[in-house]
Amino acid sequence: MSNKKLRIVPLGGLGEVGKNMMVYEYGQNILIVDTGLMFPENDMLGIDYIIPDFRYLEDKADLVRGIVITHGHEDHTGAIAHVVERFNAPIYATPLTRGLLEAKLARSGSSSKARLNTIQPGDTIWVGPFQVEFFHVCHSIPDGVGLGITTPAGLVIHTGDYKFDHTPVDEWPTDYAKLAELSNRGVLALLADSTNADRPGWTPSEKVIDGAFRDVFRNATGRIIVASFASLISRMQQVGNAALEHRRQMAFVGASMVENAKIARKLGYLDLPDDLVISLEQALKLDPSKVVLMSTGTQGEPTSIIGRLSMGTNQQFDLQEGDTVVLSSHPIPGNEESVYRTINRLFRRGATVIYEGIAPVHVSGHASQEEMKLLLHLVKPRFFIPIHGELRHLHQHASLARQVGLAEENIAVIENGHVIEFEDNQMRIGERVPGGYVFVDGAGVGDIGVTEVREREALARDGFVLVNLSLDETSRRLRDDPEIITRGFIQNRTSDDIIDGAHKVIQEAVRNGNGNLQEDLQEALRSYLFNRTRRRPMVFVTLSRS
Amino acid sequence: MSNKKLRIVPLGGLGEVGKNMMVYEYGQNILIVDTGLMFPENDMLGIDYIIPDFRYLEDKADLVRGIVITHGHEDHTGAIAHVVERFNAPIYATPLTRGLLEAKLARSGSSSKARLNTIQPGDTIWVGPFQVEFFHVCHSIPDGVGLGITTPAGLVIHTGDYKFDHTPVDEWPTDYAKLAELSNRGVLALLADSTNADRPGWTPSEKVIDGAFRDVFRNATGRIIVASFASLISRMQQVGNAALEHRRQMAFVGASMVENAKIARKLGYLDLPDDLVISLEQALKLDPSKVVLMSTGTQGEPTSIIGRLSMGTNQQFDLQEGDTVVLSSHPIPGNEESVYRTINRLFRRGATVIYEGIAPVHVSGHASQEEMKLLLHLVKPRFFIPIHGELRHLHQHASLARQVGLAEENIAVIENGHVIEFEDNQMRIGERVPGGYVFVDGAGVGDIGVTEVREREALARDGFVLVNLSLDETSRRLRDDPEIITRGFIQNRTSDDIIDGAHKVIQEAVRNGNGNLQEDLQEALRSYLFNRTRRRPMVFVTLSRS
Repeated sequence: MSNKKLRIVPLGGLGEVGKNMMVYEYGQNILIVDTGLMFPENDMLGIDYIIPDFRYLEDKADLVRGIVITHGHEDHTGAIAHVVERFNAPIYATPLTRGLLEAKLARSGSSSKARLNTIQPGDTIWVGPFQVEFFHVCHSIPDGVGLGITTPAGLVIHTGDYKFDHTPVDEWPTDYAKLAELSNRGVLALLADSTNADRPGWTPSEKVIDGAFRDVFRNATGRIIVASFASLISRMQQVGNAALEHRRQMAFVGASMVENAKIARKLGYLDLPDDLVISLEQALKLDPSKVVLMSTGTQGEPTSIIGRLSMGTNQQFDLQEGDTVVLSSHPIPGNEESVYRTINRLFRRGATVIYEGIAPVHVSGHASQEEMKLLLHLVKPRFFIPIHGELRHLHQHASLARQVGLAEENIAVIENGHVIEFEDNQMRIGERVPGGYVFVDGAGVGDIGVTEVREREALARDGFVLVNLSLDETSRRLRDDPEIITRGFIQNRTSDDIIDGAHKVIQEAVRNGNGNLQEDLQEALRSYLFNRTRRRPMVFVTLSRS
Repeated sequence: MSNKKLRIVPLGGLGEVGKNMMVYEYGQNILIVDTGLMFPENDMLGIDYIIPDFRYLEDKADLVRGIVITHGHEDHTGAIAHVVERFNAPIYATPLTRGLLEAKLARSGSSSKARLNTIQPGDTIWVGPFQVEFFHVCHSIPDGVGLGITTPAGLVIHTGDYKFDHTPVDEWPTDYAKLAELSNRGVLALLADSTNADRPGWTPSEKVIDGAFRDVFRNATGRIIVASFASLISRMQQVGNAALEHRRQMAFVGASMVENAKIARKLGYLDLPDDLVISLEQALKLDPSKVVLMSTGTQGEPTSIIGRLSMGTNQQFDLQEGDTVVLSSHPIPGNEESVYRTINRLFRRGATVIYEGIAPVHVSGHASQEEMKLLLHLVKPRFFIPIHGELRHLHQHASLARQVGLAEENIAVIENGHVIEFEDNQMRIGERVPGGYVFVDGAGVGDIGVTEVREREALARDGFVLVNLSLDETSRRLRDDPEIITRGFIQNRTSDDIIDGAHKVIQEAVRNGNGNLQEDLQEALRSYLFNRTRRRPMVFVTLSRS
């Protein structure tokens, strides 16, 4: 490999390109940006979460000079424990991001392996040949940064997740001046967040939520329960502001909410007076009209507090008449069904439910089309690589770039594992490297593959049938009645007839059998069961002979 | 039961109240409105489809005097074959709806059991004590009707699925005059479609799609493939119109598209010149710029034409460079993930993909909030029962009704199986009857219940482990090495160590066993496997002794 090439490789992240991890490589030097995880899609059965496939870096672990984390969301931080196990490089993050990383590392017992460094927006660090300048960006978590990465091949801007909010809750807008300054130096390539590339216009400011919250607080006579993400620190601030204004006290519910609020308050990213915040126990003793609770569970997760409240299985408290539940969130694609089911259940239990569909209680943390165009004009890059989005978003972002004047050949729509190379002011798409993901299931990392998920699918579809036979070898007769066990296949009380038929198939196969009895039997049962039920359960026959 | 009561019972339909079937009952007379099916939610593993639970009607089959079908969509017609097996009553439908019912009945071999009658909007029929007047409504399929049902207890209006489109493709708007006429007679109760109750404003006219199609046809240089629902006859008309205008010929692809287009053309609901429509075979021979194909597959179904094209597994033709694929549809909740995955795959194969997010190539077929308010003002009902929606939609629809002046106590938000009774101009909520649904899986109707779905969930999550032992009773020793089979639990190549450990657990349990060896072993293995992997596969031990 030429030593004069800058190589950029997006890794991991299901369909979302470069979301979880980006690799910047020059000569014998690697800079990693972000170390995130993804939650499985609905058909990745039983999988807990997904991390990037690190195979590309396997032989290059020694070359990793530094790891930069742009902000504190799971899809940018969640694989940190897996990363510090493999790569012994300094990690750089802003104070809040660092605080959240520390909590995460502590939970997984990997704190001692992480070499954490705090940086501030405006700081510059050197990571091998990479000069990294951090600039503040607005997003749905405070203290996010974008990166100006000066490489020997030229200046690259990596936005991270961003939006252009002129009235953010923390009154700290994206650093346009720094973007303009970088732009003036001449930008080789822009890598920018594409999440909302198919949304026209400009993403509303976080401020619009204030009005919706004010309505909720004015109209609610009983308890208010606001559900949001544990990382949405600015939403905590907004709920706190509304609570102050309407003389309610505020309690955080659930471990991650409580922990993140604590970190954010300690580090000065969440400004709540001490007498505003009370414990859940205290809150439950107060008049309902004097309380607002804040919890997680916006995605319809059955084990979350909102999920349990919706089913009446929460331990510490139940929903009560007069409660108002606010889902201050947007369903993550794939979760719509369970989110709506949860909302229906909350209504059934008598709560008033306010959600994004009926009031502006949530806005996106990502730039929309007009912001993307502004960024392109502000940065004036020579080359453009849309990242952080599915292929459909990247294509749409590329189309926006063409609209504002970039040449088709200066835009690269790539997928995870595609290598982009820059040399002598030229861009080319290089080879393809492993850029997929690895399933994490229980204690196992990568021990569940596509085969096992397929097997789970088959089991999920039609269940299985297990037949245990004991054969007298000499008489070729069954010594006992066959034992037939089914799971997920048929209801036992209504299926005697089908099971009786299976017994007949077994008797007949034993009587006529002359080849491999076990295999013949399995085949005969599969065929019989499909004809009877039009289903294809897995069939296993175990046979003991004596 | 008093003979003077009108009873209304919504049945079936997952979360959507009264969507699949409504029962109107007076004395010894029952009128059924609609006989639909639902597709399973993502966690109803392996289930093919869902039909209403007919238990409430089990002892009342003789009382069913008639069955009215409001329009030809699956969620209102799909259970017709199951219904004609049980209820021998005349069925009433408009010509197109009847044509689609006939095709469906023919496919399931139930044609001879169905007593079909054609009605026209404007017609009046008598079904026992119910006088049913049909009035035309706009929806995303032509020939839909709403019902004015004059009962001894008063006049009830049942909208069916509707929108107020002033410029529908077939130029046949909803019959406002009939609604006004019914209104003048005094309406006891309105039962109205709530699907879009959380959408502000007015649902756009089907006409807006024409502009989007015109753009697509103007810009496309290669083939155009428009995907939609097979029942969306008006969309076929719009594609046909655009094809005529842009001198392309049109081919329908896929059995249901071809069949429905044929029925609609024959009955005069689809006006396409004979020389416009060609077969797929002919289309594939023409210059790509001269062709538009129309197919199903908008929901990301892997076995649909669009699904197969996206994966490169379609038999008759493949995507080619320059193809434009238009998804003229909206993802049904729960399908978002597979729809977006399919779009990404289409992009990956080089197609330009136009979907709802980036151009107005689809509009809803249901009324939005302002239309709902107009309907309420037009009909001026004494009582209001929102139907056809999840609980969240019904609550929102109820809130709209309160906004336009209905008294809280004159609105009933109910769920499937809740009986509403009217007597002496009063409404009360009666008892609850079985109003759920029944799983249809393969050849089985109702033989898969909650237990089996739970078992499938458990299998889907962690798979299973099967151990087959052969024990020498006298020596209490294993006669062979245990046979260990796993599916969906661990990858075989990476899990030797775990399996070795399982062998040790088995040996030990056999050595120390003194109770029920089979149960002890299952317990020991479950516990061992959970400790090693943090997963909980189903564990079965089969034991033969000799």
